[in-house]
Amino acid sequence: MKIWQKNIDVDSFVESFTVGNDRVMDLQLAAADVLGSLAHTRMLNSISLMTDEDLALVQKELKNIYKEILAGDFQIEDSVEDVHSQVEMLLTQRIGEAGKKIHSGRSRNDQVLVDLKLYFRTEIQHIIQNTEAFFNELIQLSERYKHILIPGYTHLQIAMPSSFGLWFGAYAESLVDDLEMMKAAWKVCNKNPLGSAAGYGSSFPLNRTMTTQLLGFEDLNYNVVYAQMGRGKTERILAQGMSSIAATLAKFAMDVCLYINQNFGFISFPAHLTTGSSIMPHKKNPDVFELIRSRCNKIQALPNEIALMTTNLPSGYHRDLQLLKENLFPAFKSLNECLEIATFMLENISVKDNILDDPKYDYLFSVEVVNNEVLKGVPFREAYRTIGIDIDEGRFKPSKEVNHTHEGSIGNLCNDQIQRMFQQVKATFGFEQVEKALEELVK
Amino acid sequence: MKIWQKNIDVDSFVESFTVGNDRVMDLQLAAADVLGSLAHTRMLNSISLMTDEDLALVQKELKNIYKEILAGDFQIEDSVEDVHSQVEMLLTQRIGEAGKKIHSGRSRNDQVLVDLKLYFRTEIQHIIQNTEAFFNELIQLSERYKHILIPGYTHLQIAMPSSFGLWFGAYAESLVDDLEMMKAAWKVCNKNPLGSAAGYGSSFPLNRTMTTQLLGFEDLNYNVVYAQMGRGKTERILAQGMSSIAATLAKFAMDVCLYINQNFGFISFPAHLTTGSSIMPHKKNPDVFELIRSRCNKIQALPNEIALMTTNLPSGYHRDLQLLKENLFPAFKSLNECLEIATFMLENISVKDNILDDPKYDYLFSVEVVNNEVLKGVPFREAYRTIGIDIDEGRFKPSKEVNHTHEGSIGNLCNDQIQRMFQQVKATFGFEQVEKALEELVK
Amino acid sequence: MKIWQKNIDVDSFVESFTVGNDRVMDLQLAAADVLGSLAHTRMLNSISLMTDEDLALVQKELKNIYKEILAGDFQIEDSVEDVHSQVEMLLTQRIGEAGKKIHSGRSRNDQVLVDLKLYFRTEIQHIIQNTEAFFNELIQLSERYKHILIPGYTHLQIAMPSSFGLWFGAYAESLVDDLEMMKAAWKVCNKNPLGSAAGYGSSFPLNRTMTTQLLGFEDLNYNVVYAQMGRGKTERILAQGMSSIAATLAKFAMDVCLYINQNFGFISFPAHLTTGSSIMPHKKNPDVFELIRSRCNKIQALPNEIALMTTNLPSGYHRDLQLLKENLFPAFKSLNECLEIATFMLENISVKDNILDDPKYDYLFSVEVVNNEVLKGVPFREAYRTIGIDIDEGRFKPSKEVNHTHEGSIGNLCNDQIQRMFQQVKATFGFEQVEKALEELVK
Amino acid sequence: MKIWQKNIDVDSFVESFTVGNDRVMDLQLAAADVLGSLAHTRMLNSISLMTDEDLALVQKELKNIYKEILAGDFQIEDSVEDVHSQVEMLLTQRIGEAGKKIHSGRSRNDQVLVDLKLYFRTEIQHIIQNTEAFFNELIQLSERYKHILIPGYTHLQIAMPSSFGLWFGAYAESLVDDLEMMKAAWKVCNKNPLGSAAGYGSSFPLNRTMTTQLLGFEDLNYNVVYAQMGRGKTERILAQGMSSIAATLAKFAMDVCLYINQNFGFISFPAHLTTGSSIMPHKKNPDVFELIRSRCNKIQALPNEIALMTTNLPSGYHRDLQLLKENLFPAFKSLNECLEIATFMLENISVKDNILDDPKYDYLFSVEVVNNEVLKGVPFREAYRTIGIDIDEGRFKPSKEVNHTHEGSIGNLCNDQIQRMFQQVKATFGFEQVEKALEELVK
Repeated sequence: MKIWQKNIDVDSFVESFTVGNDRVMDLQLAAADVLGSLAHTRMLNSISLMTDEDLALVQKELKNIYKEILAGDFQIEDSVEDVHSQVEMLLTQRIGEAGKKIHSGRSRNDQVLVDLKLYFRTEIQHIIQNTEAFFNELIQLSERYKHILIPGYTHLQIAMPSSFGLWFGAYAESLVDDLEMMKAAWKVCNKNPLGSAAGYGSSFPLNRTMTTQLLGFEDLNYNVVYAQMGRGKTERILAQGMSSIAATLAKFAMDVCLYINQNFGFISFPAHLTTGSSIMPHKKNPDVFELIRSRCNKIQALPNEIALMTTNLPSGYHRDLQLLKENLFPAFKSLNECLEIATFMLENISVKDNILDDPKYDYLFSVEVVNNEVLKGVPFREAYRTIGIDIDEGRFKPSKEVNHTHEGSIGNLCNDQIQRMFQQVKATFGFEQVEKALEELVK
Repeated sequence: MKIWQKNIDVDSFVESFTVGNDRVMDLQLAAADVLGSLAHTRMLNSISLMTDEDLALVQKELKNIYKEILAGDFQIEDSVEDVHSQVEMLLTQRIGEAGKKIHSGRSRNDQVLVDLKLYFRTEIQHIIQNTEAFFNELIQLSERYKHILIPGYTHLQIAMPSSFGLWFGAYAESLVDDLEMMKAAWKVCNKNPLGSAAGYGSSFPLNRTMTTQLLGFEDLNYNVVYAQMGRGKTERILAQGMSSIAATLAKFAMDVCLYINQNFGFISFPAHLTTGSSIMPHKKNPDVFELIRSRCNKIQALPNEIALMTTNLPSGYHRDLQLLKENLFPAFKSLNECLEIATFMLENISVKDNILDDPKYDYLFSVEVVNNEVLKGVPFREAYRTIGIDIDEGRFKPSKEVNHTHEGSIGNLCNDQIQRMFQQVKATFGFEQVEKALEELVK
Repeated sequence: MKIWQKNIDVDSFVESFTVGNDRVMDLQLAAADVLGSLAHTRMLNSISLMTDEDLALVQKELKNIYKEILAGDFQIEDSVEDVHSQVEMLLTQRIGEAGKKIHSGRSRNDQVLVDLKLYFRTEIQHIIQNTEAFFNELIQLSERYKHILIPGYTHLQIAMPSSFGLWFGAYAESLVDDLEMMKAAWKVCNKNPLGSAAGYGSSFPLNRTMTTQLLGFEDLNYNVVYAQMGRGKTERILAQGMSSIAATLAKFAMDVCLYINQNFGFISFPAHLTTGSSIMPHKKNPDVFELIRSRCNKIQALPNEIALMTTNLPSGYHRDLQLLKENLFPAFKSLNECLEIATFMLENISVKDNILDDPKYDYLFSVEVVNNEVLKGVPFREAYRTIGIDIDEGRFKPSKEVNHTHEGSIGNLCNDQIQRMFQQVKATFGFEQVEKALEELVK
Repeated sequence: MKIWQKNIDVDSFVESFTVGNDRVMDLQLAAADVLGSLAHTRMLNSISLMTDEDLALVQKELKNIYKEILAGDFQIEDSVEDVHSQVEMLLTQRIGEAGKKIHSGRSRNDQVLVDLKLYFRTEIQHIIQNTEAFFNELIQLSERYKHILIPGYTHLQIAMPSSFGLWFGAYAESLVDDLEMMKAAWKVCNKNPLGSAAGYGSSFPLNRTMTTQLLGFEDLNYNVVYAQMGRGKTERILAQGMSSIAATLAKFAMDVCLYINQNFGFISFPAHLTTGSSIMPHKKNPDVFELIRSRCNKIQALPNEIALMTTNLPSGYHRDLQLLKENLFPAFKSLNECLEIATFMLENISVKDNILDDPKYDYLFSVEVVNNEVLKGVPFREAYRTIGIDIDEGRFKPSKEVNHTHEGSIGNLCNDQIQRMFQQVKATFGFEQVEKALEELVK
């Protein structure tokens, strides 16, 4: 099959193959791209590579474009290859020759590198906010339902008494550890690659420390070869951080689908948040949670996809890296939506009371009864044997009173400690410093 | 095909299927298991579940067993299921009934959880040590060869001047970011799950804060359901941390294999560290680096393998988790060996001088020449056009002098800053506190 | 963050979350959906569940809609949930009540199952066609350049003489084995799931054998629970088939990027098919092949992504499966584009002559020389030693004549056998029978 | 950390790093290695590169070694690098100089290639046998329990009546499609790479067609570069075939773990095949199925692991490929054990009768009742409305009679067709021809 047999213009075929979805993806980088140029041009001016007059023109107009982007009034035209060109073109249309000078001392490579890092910082902060809302909802539910017992399973077999307090709280605490992974991603993103040019630096006397401060980065990607090498790696690490939150959400969704199943029947949601059928009134399909599970498992596959696309590439830029945008960018939206809708669903959850009244759960308490005897002084082996005989002979009648007092147990959930840990990790990100620097930059 | 047609004893077939390689794997947990019991029994005594006499006996003998383990004198017998049983059996053989009491207030589940966390802490520290040695070697080479230029490639096409200083230094800085991932893994591992029993807590009035301090953990896994849920998740996060170092090593190995190839010919190793052939004297097969690459790519596959084995399992313990040992434990050894042998190979590397004398590298300098004109005041477009004509007409003669001065460039590698960053991250692990607590415990 | 604080309508948020991109994806299923309904309604009529009058109306209008779909005149409206509803709605608008009857004896589940299988068959055929074009181009190039020698590498070290004939031909033969994988996918797709209803069959006396024949399927998915279980599994198997072709293409792209690199310099492409720079006239960035590599590596990640999204789901339908469309459907387009553009690029490739004249390739021939001595009767060890000494003492002067005659070697490429194998596998798909059945159905 | 600081001998460290586990792995290739040499030497003799006398000596002794291998009397000594060297050494010890000649016209590369293909063929046949035993057991259970109804779930919600007949039969039919994938792997493995030497052929006039016939291969890997390129690819394709069976087994194990859970309670196993507790008499931990699930999910991760280890390697041999043995070889044993133990467990399964008597399953029949009214002539919408009202007003009393008659439904399982399909695929492998050729070779 020859391309021309299909009456396809060769050059446009090649161009469309190479540009791909880049215009759509790049739209999300627009704000970051302007921020990068605001900092870069101030630095150019400081090393006498841009005049004060040009700087004033450029800064003013870049800030206008920034506002247009925030207002949703920015597009990448079909004839323009990417966001960087679009911004430069707009600028030049509006302020003339000065607009062309913003690219001095930069290459497309370090421009996209800094755009990505700035964009990722914003997305990380967004994810953390949604994670916190979900976390808070879980803690609230854990406190509200801490007295309602449910069976705890091991090997998916009825094992020990548990509670809604424990169940909701467990997923809250899971998010604390997920935050540590996002923190690592944040640290990697919060370093400045600008000034690395095409990955080998520049003969211009750039002041990279200055752009680092202007853009609110915590540190530099010093080595320019490493700055370039960070492409692909940064994406993978960020995807790994996201996959951790996604794994927590997916597991929670699996539990929800099991607990809403009629054989368990521990929880329910209002009819309008599930899918049913008028002739199968029992049916409450948990579509939202099935899709949370599915989306989150897709996000869990992302780090591996990135690894497969970057492994065994020697150092230096390769065009392969462009495609990583298409993997990662939609995952931000997807994860945020999952967090938001999970929070919303939990605000509407109903839990069933008196679950453990069902006699099939009686044996849950056998270990408790043995332990209580031990605490009264009966040797363990003897207590164990006595209860075993009681069970055998049908005499076992558990009190179904649970008296767990240690840290993190049914009677002592330590949700305040879990909240303390969450806030401790969150505080180390330093979002405020970043926000302050950027406000300064666009002021 | 019926099992009994093969004259296989059914019960032993089932037993061998379920035990699998656990005895071999568990041997690596032995020291951790004893540490856990040392702390647990002191806590039991503090809440009056173990007498002072029993405690004294148990502590003394556990410390003996600990020494035997360190000396390599500990085995798990074929008739014993796992390391926990082996330690308990040894103890009971030596001190009688008191030995059986160490299991009070614990279940097999939280015992293995705390063993894993203690073992992972040790392994993380080991990996960080080897990473630091490799890092230091890279920094040294970067400094030693900072004046030797090599071509820099983009799209694998000759692009800009680079240097051995940049190349070695880039991989050093890459390890700094990898350390952030290991740090996240460390934070997740450095929390105490002991006291969560089978994942639903206990009716004994355990003091989990006390065992946390005794074992040098930074914090608790408070929620007991989460403590259990950490199994699988901890492994995945640790594997993600390791995969980051592995990705750096694999990429470096790819570069080495390319640069030792005769078409590049930038580096070489002594004959006894490569594989050759007497009738192909040019052949220096870089087997060590090919195997580093391969092993590290295998480690990169590990997080996904763990995800596939744990995804969509509802909360609560499942036997599936046992198999994760077989994935993760050998990876520690493999990554450490890769780091050690890569360090060793680098100590023996030779780099070629005067690489850029080859005229095929002349055009590397065209951007430099343009930039230099710009710095002298020639407008960029004019400088660009002039050089273009020079090249076209064969008049282009680059000086091959590189004058890069900004942070992280050929002339200003900032290796001191990279070292500062490495040490900053390393310092936050707090290995010393952990070591101090454990020394106290076994004293 | 509460959803309503954002002034979002809850129901539309939930709806948009659950519908996702389904409308966009479903558009690709439109033709298949009509084919399914054409067969299903004829079967309904045969078991007296649809009158002859209704059947005539339905068949006529479905065929009209089919033509509109092929002409690109079919859309799924925003108010309509999926393609099945859109077709049913159009039909009912045009022919009244009879249109509603096409859903009798079916559920949404088996409707989408049969749509997917029909759609996948079409896509497989499309991929095979593009693969064949690429295969033919490789065979042609192998024949055209069979006399031009290149170095063969092992361990990326110069090792033995090879040729462009071998290099191109190797990738052609690789596609033969890839076809076996696509064949397995085809066999799995070419079975009829229609009639399985929601995955548990129906009390209507459906004639599933009849729809199987009408739709040109080779066999049935008999067991209705398995028919449903095929969802996800079919996608994974098809993705594995595609990943095999993708792996071949990606590896070829890696070779191309290496061989176009100036240190190798074995091949080149016209300037307008690479990306260059006027001041770096040597630079010919192989963007097309870098993107082929990247896209194909992304496709290689697809089977794992599907596995992660379906693993550990118990039997029966789950909404999770809906999202697989978003993974797989774009991969068809991507793989086809890669095959087409790779074929196009190869039509424009130039290969360098006299590569082996460069003295760095002299040792390539040392094994040949030894073997020739052996064939003349010199004992191997003696020949080996003599040549070794010649090389040591700088006396080695290879003739650079290669006389390889056995099957598949430089002098005897066996491209006819490779073509025979390709055609043999292709013939077993039975595309013609399928085409004939479908032509009959829409006639 | 310097290696020598640890008093490690450098050369042995490097050697142990490069040899790795190869000796252990290679032991499994021993029989295949001898088969390859038996064929190769007969071919050498046919082209006058081995005398009749030498051939007689070599054949006789190779057959002795073959018997020793089958009897388990073969070891690879610590001082010997791999299986090829061990066989050659044994041979030379026993028959002198003639033993050294078996390597003529071969390289280590094509020797290991042919060994792998021969070994993989054996392992595939072994897996198919175990799959058939499991398949037969499922079909038997499907027939035996075809009248026992169970609830069918969609979205894990109670949906429609199903049966043990359907449930067991579904997994049997799943194996039919898995066989298609194994078939593709078999086709790829059943081609002869011998004669490709180091991947670039040989100047000896080898007769590759002759060795192809002697070794019972269906065809050749003609192109010698492709023969080498098949390494890694063959492993990936075989792993994909195995992952398909593994996915079926893992899903079945998930169902088993759910159905043995007390909230479902559909099935059980004898006490000695589950793990319980004397004070939790209800607890029957399905450890065997949890480990089947876990092992099979690990096998599902294998193709991706191989892809990560081979992606982006240019053509030609790389030492990376050696490590693939360690991934794949243990997976054969693991999958075979899973199939055997699953078969064994199923021989001991008990299914619960009268499950649907529980009123929570009443609504399962609502769709049946509607359909029955439709079949009696009541318009669908009316029937649907009437039943809906009955349900609302508590008047719904389903007959719980299921009358499904179409192909693959509860009342017409078509297990004979499923068996026919299984046997059809199996017959196309052609195991007998291979066996016959090999018997001839070692006779």
